[in-house]
Amino acid sequence: MSDRPLILVSNDDGITAPGIRTLVEAIKHLGEVIVVAPDSPQSAMGHAVTISRPLRLEKTNLYGDIASYQCSGTPADCVKLAVDKVFHRKPDLLVSGINHGSNSSINVIYSGTMSAAVEGAIEGIPSVGFSLCDFSYDADFSLAKKVATKMAENILLNGLPKGVLLNVNVPKILEANLQGYKVCRQANAKWQEEFNERLDPNNRKYYWLTGKFVNHDKGDDTDEWALANNYVSVVPVQFDLTAHHAISYLNTWNYNHEQ
Amino acid sequence: MSDRPLILVSNDDGITAPGIRTLVEAIKHLGEVIVVAPDSPQSAMGHAVTISRPLRLEKTNLYGDIASYQCSGTPADCVKLAVDKVFHRKPDLLVSGINHGSNSSINVIYSGTMSAAVEGAIEGIPSVGFSLCDFSYDADFSLAKKVATKMAENILLNGLPKGVLLNVNVPKILEANLQGYKVCRQANAKWQEEFNERLDPNNRKYYWLTGKFVNHDKGDDTDEWALANNYVSVVPVQFDLTAHHAISYLNTWNYNHEQ
Repeated sequence: MSDRPLILVSNDDGITAPGIRTLVEAIKHLGEVIVVAPDSPQSAMGHAVTISRPLRLEKTNLYGDIASYQCSGTPADCVKLAVDKVFHRKPDLLVSGINHGSNSSINVIYSGTMSAAVEGAIEGIPSVGFSLCDFSYDADFSLAKKVATKMAENILLNGLPKGVLLNVNVPKILEANLQGYKVCRQANAKWQEEFNERLDPNNRKYYWLTGKFVNHDKGDDTDEWALANNYVSVVPVQFDLTAHHAISYLNTWNYNHEQ
Repeated sequence: MSDRPLILVSNDDGITAPGIRTLVEAIKHLGEVIVVAPDSPQSAMGHAVTISRPLRLEKTNLYGDIASYQCSGTPADCVKLAVDKVFHRKPDLLVSGINHGSNSSINVIYSGTMSAAVEGAIEGIPSVGFSLCDFSYDADFSLAKKVATKMAENILLNGLPKGVLLNVNVPKILEANLQGYKVCRQANAKWQEEFNERLDPNNRKYYWLTGKFVNHDKGDDTDEWALANNYVSVVPVQFDLTAHHAISYLNTWNYNHEQ
């Protein structure tokens, strides 16, 4: 038995990705750490869970003294399995990432990294997802590692409001150029789809999803603004999706089947 | 050319499911309808999109005079492909469903039905997801069909606020017992995971996700309350996940790397 904080580490790039290795290094001094992460990349899985096939969960020795498990499912599956089958009490902290690539603005919706954190928050675990705005496999995680340590310390020290998790994105810059941290809102931006159309060897069409990120949100209180101006962006995220401001408007509608 | 409303129909149970057939019947008199739906069931896919493999999109004749396409991807993929490759202008309405099974409260996060509607809303299309609280293949969709017609009429007539879509759930009751429609908030409920552990023929463990739905939210303004009291629940949903109320609290934290 130990009264050190119990920390669950997950991600969506898979248990062998440099980003999750960095994350373990960043927080392992803060408590008892257990890694439960996908056995293969699960980017853009959104909040998918696996109901139509069974899941595997296997112990690994990838992290030396730190217990680690790889799971055949999605990031949300990893968190669900960790809570039910690996931990003997609710973890004190869930950290997800560090993602190879940004999860700012609308990407929070598509992100597997963030779905692990959202699932943790639904379970009542203080949770945070980290992403570095650099897609390359051998990205420089040195600033992101410091950010992860600082944010994990903050959450363990201060706690998070009920129903709130954090989406933390780190710009692709040297620490010397960091302007600081910015608590901000999700920018109102989107992906403009452009499917790449090709013909297979049998002359049948197929499509690759590509797209252009478009940000028409000019606010200086957004995560996109923060990242473009060399700040770490910290967005509080909720999983109550109710648009409360629209309720009174919808009450003016006619719901009579006979009219 | 036609100035009738252009309506995109999708779902997550797949293009041949009774629920989507009912939905097409419910709204086909309201405009020009095009169906773009998954070629296989995609329940619980959350907001997954397909980036690591190519997609197929094939014309079908499943709906007679109504144009229909089946897609090898997720519900969100279907909407993206429809917007980029099928429609020649932005649709005036997206309807998703009718799902076989509830998507009330926290299920909005896991639901493929709702992810199609969320993707539509991100694209700027007035969007709604419909679900019937009955998982069976041969469920009675007669009330749900009337609800779909009424809600589609309302959206085409009145429009929806920017960034807001609707999550509509229909109780498993006869219309004679319907108390009406209730505009409400997402109940604060969750799934209590209980993985079912088994041994395969090689004596290796595997797990099936099962769970118990737990609702500790006693409010009478929630979707769970509405459905339990024989109302259709209408929840306005947003994809700005920012927990604005937490921003000032997070500004009290220490973000100095040296401390």
